[in-house]
Amino acid sequence: MGQVEAAIGFARENKTRFVDELKALLRIPSVSTLPEHVDDVRQAAVFCATELKRIGMENVRLIETSEEERMIAASEGPAVLVPGRIGHPLVYAEWLGAAPAADGTPKPTVLCYGHYDVQPPDPLDEWKTPPFEPTERDGNLYARGAVDDKGQMWMHVKALESLFSVGGGELPVNVRVILEGEEEVGGEGIANYLREHGAALKADVALVSDTEMFAPELPTLCVGLRGMIYTEIEARGARTDLHSGMYGGAAPNPFVALAQVIAKLKDEDGKILIPGFYDKVQKPTADELKAWAALPFDEEHYRETEVGSVELTGEPGYSVMERTWARPTLDVHGMPGGFTGAGAKTVIPAKALAKVSLRLVPDMTPAESFAQYEAFVESLCPKGIELEVRLIHAGDPIVVSTDNVYVKAATDAMREVFGKETVFVRGGGSIPVVGDFVRNLKVPTVLMGFGLPDDNLHAPNEKFHLANFHRGIESIVRFLGGLS
Amino acid sequence: MGQVEAAIGFARENKTRFVDELKALLRIPSVSTLPEHVDDVRQAAVFCATELKRIGMENVRLIETSEEERMIAASEGPAVLVPGRIGHPLVYAEWLGAAPAADGTPKPTVLCYGHYDVQPPDPLDEWKTPPFEPTERDGNLYARGAVDDKGQMWMHVKALESLFSVGGGELPVNVRVILEGEEEVGGEGIANYLREHGAALKADVALVSDTEMFAPELPTLCVGLRGMIYTEIEARGARTDLHSGMYGGAAPNPFVALAQVIAKLKDEDGKILIPGFYDKVQKPTADELKAWAALPFDEEHYRETEVGSVELTGEPGYSVMERTWARPTLDVHGMPGGFTGAGAKTVIPAKALAKVSLRLVPDMTPAESFAQYEAFVESLCPKGIELEVRLIHAGDPIVVSTDNVYVKAATDAMREVFGKETVFVRGGGSIPVVGDFVRNLKVPTVLMGFGLPDDNLHAPNEKFHLANFHRGIESIVRFLGGLS
Repeated sequence: MGQVEAAIGFARENKTRFVDELKALLRIPSVSTLPEHVDDVRQAAVFCATELKRIGMENVRLIETSEEERMIAASEGPAVLVPGRIGHPLVYAEWLGAAPAADGTPKPTVLCYGHYDVQPPDPLDEWKTPPFEPTERDGNLYARGAVDDKGQMWMHVKALESLFSVGGGELPVNVRVILEGEEEVGGEGIANYLREHGAALKADVALVSDTEMFAPELPTLCVGLRGMIYTEIEARGARTDLHSGMYGGAAPNPFVALAQVIAKLKDEDGKILIPGFYDKVQKPTADELKAWAALPFDEEHYRETEVGSVELTGEPGYSVMERTWARPTLDVHGMPGGFTGAGAKTVIPAKALAKVSLRLVPDMTPAESFAQYEAFVESLCPKGIELEVRLIHAGDPIVVSTDNVYVKAATDAMREVFGKETVFVRGGGSIPVVGDFVRNLKVPTVLMGFGLPDDNLHAPNEKFHLANFHRGIESIVRFLGGLS
Repeated sequence: MGQVEAAIGFARENKTRFVDELKALLRIPSVSTLPEHVDDVRQAAVFCATELKRIGMENVRLIETSEEERMIAASEGPAVLVPGRIGHPLVYAEWLGAAPAADGTPKPTVLCYGHYDVQPPDPLDEWKTPPFEPTERDGNLYARGAVDDKGQMWMHVKALESLFSVGGGELPVNVRVILEGEEEVGGEGIANYLREHGAALKADVALVSDTEMFAPELPTLCVGLRGMIYTEIEARGARTDLHSGMYGGAAPNPFVALAQVIAKLKDEDGKILIPGFYDKVQKPTADELKAWAALPFDEEHYRETEVGSVELTGEPGYSVMERTWARPTLDVHGMPGGFTGAGAKTVIPAKALAKVSLRLVPDMTPAESFAQYEAFVESLCPKGIELEVRLIHAGDPIVVSTDNVYVKAATDAMREVFGKETVFVRGGGSIPVVGDFVRNLKVPTVLMGFGLPDDNLHAPNEKFHLANFHRGIESIVRFLGGLS
């Protein structure tokens, strides 16, 4: 029995332990965007590093990305100072001892990427069990980060452990692991590191498991991701909060102003009205559109089970796949300011904020898109109001190549595990590091994810289907073995 | 020396103690809209009742307005259930022993009204000194409630004390005192009480000190108040919070929906677009407009010192006085929901709220105005969204009569204290109880207020100019004496 089959046996024997370890990691509330969790984020990094060392990886270390006050910059766009923000560390590990093939050909080096930070858990009262007390129900593991991305990152670690354990402390290929703790806040730390120290991560292919399968039982590779710009619009009116009885009719209202601006940013069908915003949008190829149309997708079922709204929205004339994968979009995430308690307070707030993000598609760039957006927002400034537009973070849209041996190895591995051919899809979300891999390492990225569409990413009751956790480990074992 | 002159002497001798007592009352955070302050609100009621008893008032008691779960209803409009809300008590006191005049004519009965509840203090970080630690600076007393209305209510109590003290425990007229603890949340408790037990407050005139002077040194009577409806619009889209990467372009966004609705409620000049909304609006009389035009008012100075915005807003063709006193307006006070922390969270929230109020002027009614508003908002419902419109509280607009002996007594009293003729203005805010007095007691109300335009009502750094606190006491002493 070869190393791959033995490693799969090992993984099956240790299923319970693997899940228990994952639960321990999920108990650490490593919410990267909230300053009060900075120590938790570091604790999660240490947890991962400790385990990587234990299983046999070498040169394991934390790489600091911190400065007392640092700039969070768009990859090419303007920079914004976030006072007091502390960067979260990278975790690095390597094992580069794979023996060359009989003909002397060196084994490839695979760069395994994951992130150990998570989204905030709010709204807390909508969780059936607490977000940081991992709970199994109906074959699923519920916790913030279960699938995004601690659970999927842990598949990599456990696949490596399985191969090490049955291979006399050796892997079939060379492996580097890089984990980040800022994926949910834009990934600026790893972007800087890749820009300055890309050579230290020299590899032949990157493996990222931070995406989902198109449907249960359907092995999926993601070959494109939207980019994004995440912004804040601050509207300022009066110098201080005023009483709406005394000043209503004379003082500008920042919330009304923001509403007027937002209502002009996209029309009621979802078309974004920023001049020039669609100029660089590339239509998917005819082949890609044909493949998408052939995917098992029932729009009414999607509306009912995944979204749950009375109707779907978005640009007419485009399918849901096109609208969520290949068209730019604009969303408002929150509007802090003023009075948000129960009951009534008749305040005209001095200022109000809108947290607005725009998803970008190839060949848009964050820098140009932000410049268009900022100029348009400023042109809409209502009477009596001062607007300030800030870029919080940004990521490039990407399309990855499918025409290489790594994609073939991935589809072979998943065919073995799932008994089905792999489908190629895109993702609507942004994984900023994939663009950084393309730009700085110039290597193909295999986006092999095992989440499910109803896993509640970024929402209450996030979960990971445990069968997919285990199939993910087996797929990665076979993928690494297949590259040998 | 008569009782009035002696009482003024007493008040002057006791200035420091009067302010110290007020400070003690201001230290009680009696925020009526926040459930966590329910005990503080009651403590403030007890504080006032104890003092009223001490100075010589009789039959002093708390009147409960509480039910375990109660309805907060518009005076005539639809009702809304607020689960678990606890009504705050009224404080009642009386002294009805005034001897008739030599010719046997009974002395009039004056109903003194005030409120001991306050607005929430947020945003806390904008207070120079803490809102519930009263602090004197530059002749002003800074605290939440300093002028609205604890300080002005305390003027009544101290005027009564001064008259009692020098009058052998007698007042020159009959007096009832009614204080409420729900003025800042709509005043439903006192409204119910007046409707059901109005006879218990039988009086000839009501005296309310909860308004401001038009300018420093300028004695002012308020003869009109706007009404209001305070509402919430809840927009619901997806069943749960969704990731804007995965669902942006297909899932409805409740904040965008609210922005679209709000942007259609009034135009960019401030004209409200609700069909029929202006139908019942009465234009002020030519005399009133002429008097307003003669008031000492510099619009640029007002913009600069009171509002502090780059421009004023509001309907073209109307003066600031007309816009804030005699025209309906619409304001948004807060938009709770979604992600409001620092940093980035890419959520499409399942729901979002807008807290929206509309000021009403004679002869609009809350019931009809809310019905028009609700129907219009519902007609604007964006695709994929479900809207719910809720009425939180309501108050009638009123105009009070100036043609009676009570107004003459008030202007005489203030001429004596300030050395100037009184100006007649309106107020933009709502004092719901004034409408209740008109409807249920059928007595005229004298709105004799001593706040200043820069007193920061409902805002950080609320203050009361202490000279006006003392002049207010003297004016009320003279007013009561003048009615004898």
